[in-house]
Amino acid sequence: MIRQVTITPHMCGGSSSIFAQLGDWTWEAVAADCGTNVYDARTADGHPAYLSFYYFHVRGSAERHPHGLTFGDELTVSSRVFDFGGESVLTLHRLSTSDDEIDPVEFYENPRPDGIYVQNFNRWISRSRPDSNEELVRSAPPDFRHEHLPQLPPQYSPRGIASQARKNGTFHPSGVPGHTLAETFDTTYELDVVHDFNGVGLVYFASYFSIIDTALLRLWRRMGRDDRQFLARRVLDHKLGYFGNADLDSRLRIAIRLWRDDSGGGAEVADVAVREIESGRLLAVAAISLLVEEA
Amino acid sequence: MIRQVTITPHMCGGSSSIFAQLGDWTWEAVAADCGTNVYDARTADGHPAYLSFYYFHVRGSAERHPHGLTFGDELTVSSRVFDFGGESVLTLHRLSTSDDEIDPVEFYENPRPDGIYVQNFNRWISRSRPDSNEELVRSAPPDFRHEHLPQLPPQYSPRGIASQARKNGTFHPSGVPGHTLAETFDTTYELDVVHDFNGVGLVYFASYFSIIDTALLRLWRRMGRDDRQFLARRVLDHKLGYFGNADLDSRLRIAIRLWRDDSGGGAEVADVAVREIESGRLLAVAAISLLVEEA
Repeated sequence: MIRQVTITPHMCGGSSSIFAQLGDWTWEAVAADCGTNVYDARTADGHPAYLSFYYFHVRGSAERHPHGLTFGDELTVSSRVFDFGGESVLTLHRLSTSDDEIDPVEFYENPRPDGIYVQNFNRWISRSRPDSNEELVRSAPPDFRHEHLPQLPPQYSPRGIASQARKNGTFHPSGVPGHTLAETFDTTYELDVVHDFNGVGLVYFASYFSIIDTALLRLWRRMGRDDRQFLARRVLDHKLGYFGNADLDSRLRIAIRLWRDDSGGGAEVADVAVREIESGRLLAVAAISLLVEEA
Repeated sequence: MIRQVTITPHMCGGSSSIFAQLGDWTWEAVAADCGTNVYDARTADGHPAYLSFYYFHVRGSAERHPHGLTFGDELTVSSRVFDFGGESVLTLHRLSTSDDEIDPVEFYENPRPDGIYVQNFNRWISRSRPDSNEELVRSAPPDFRHEHLPQLPPQYSPRGIASQARKNGTFHPSGVPGHTLAETFDTTYELDVVHDFNGVGLVYFASYFSIIDTALLRLWRRMGRDDRQFLARRVLDHKLGYFGNADLDSRLRIAIRLWRDDSGGGAEVADVAVREIESGRLLAVAAISLLVEEA
């Protein structure tokens, strides 16, 4: 699927809009390719089924990155959906000025410097209890068609990366090569009723980006960095694994380890784990590689 | 302009997304009708010009209202742009299941119970200093065409309503007829770097909705209402006048007067004024008519 897109205010306002928009493009691509109305899907026994985000990976460059987009930017969004069995699906997007089809080898091995690359790994889930966002279970709609989709070369599968991150509570269990641990930080975050829930009362996948950014901003302020620097940060790589949802009154503990590139130049990796305080459940793990502007 | 729309997650997640989406539809309609690329507009001397929101009015019903939309809803969005001179423009939208053209008389006098009606009054502005969000000045792009647009019957013009609200700091200077003042509330809000700014660094018009909702939620909690009731609130009418923008480090004081319908039934009007604390500038005034669910 190839779309010619003019970035609108709603696609780039605030910290999570671009990710929300990317997620909409994933749902649109899956709806077009898989014979399922993903916006109103049902399990075999008639309960709502959601094409949830399990792993979200965005790559940019110093030239073009997700928070650098602004309204009026004209881009081509090239999207492709891959077979991952009957309960999950993988979607790639490239935002660039090229209008050829996206190819997995380019995506993983040879990205173009003017491209933003996005990998979404989604799984069908449903609530196990209608009034709770915990214990979501896997459950695909019976009309979900996937056998006809192309296969992703197995070396590019995100399954291993995501399951290791879930097991270890980090994408970097042995530290970040070439980087030194510069800061550790812990903060408490109360889920925000106004911002964090989607149209069916689950914590919105896009809000995990702004929840994590809220914690990162608190760390930056503690480090004496100003808010303009925060808004000017360039995100080169953002991995986010979704391992749990939560209810309205949940309080989260967000732990950040900040790794600084030994070669200088203002490159850092924020290694983030989000846990529900009451239950101790791991809700999300992120690794954000970014460039910091000088003050 | 008539659009067949399936509501997506990004159109309904959180408190401000639907308003952000409505704003995008306004820009899209103006871009189509007025010969201007509203996403990348320039003043005669080459500075960025923004089609800013000056007055935003949404009307729903108990049946269908902005926060009641969820992904999968299928609606027809009927939009029409009206001439308001060379520096401003008025757009009407109806979200419903009817696919006829929107008519101003229907809109103002005879709304259908299954419709959400939206009036946007926009003005062209630009920054008077490149590094400040204060003292924005009126400034239209030279290619903005409006003479060919239909005229809105003058009795429906929002100019008077908006300028009175600006002068009085409220849409209800003499109270709300048939309602009694039930609560007054004041709260401080620090502009949120993660959520509140748009792609060009101005406070995002859609964020004014979530900023005001944040204050309203604090009042509801103080009144002993729970968060589920807040998410279930039905917004029957929401007027919002935009009278100033603000910079990154601004702190706001949000004052709410809550008026309760004397006839019972859980109808209330929240009468809201938003001021910048340091300067005392009035940034916005809102009146939100809503139905409260029983606990």
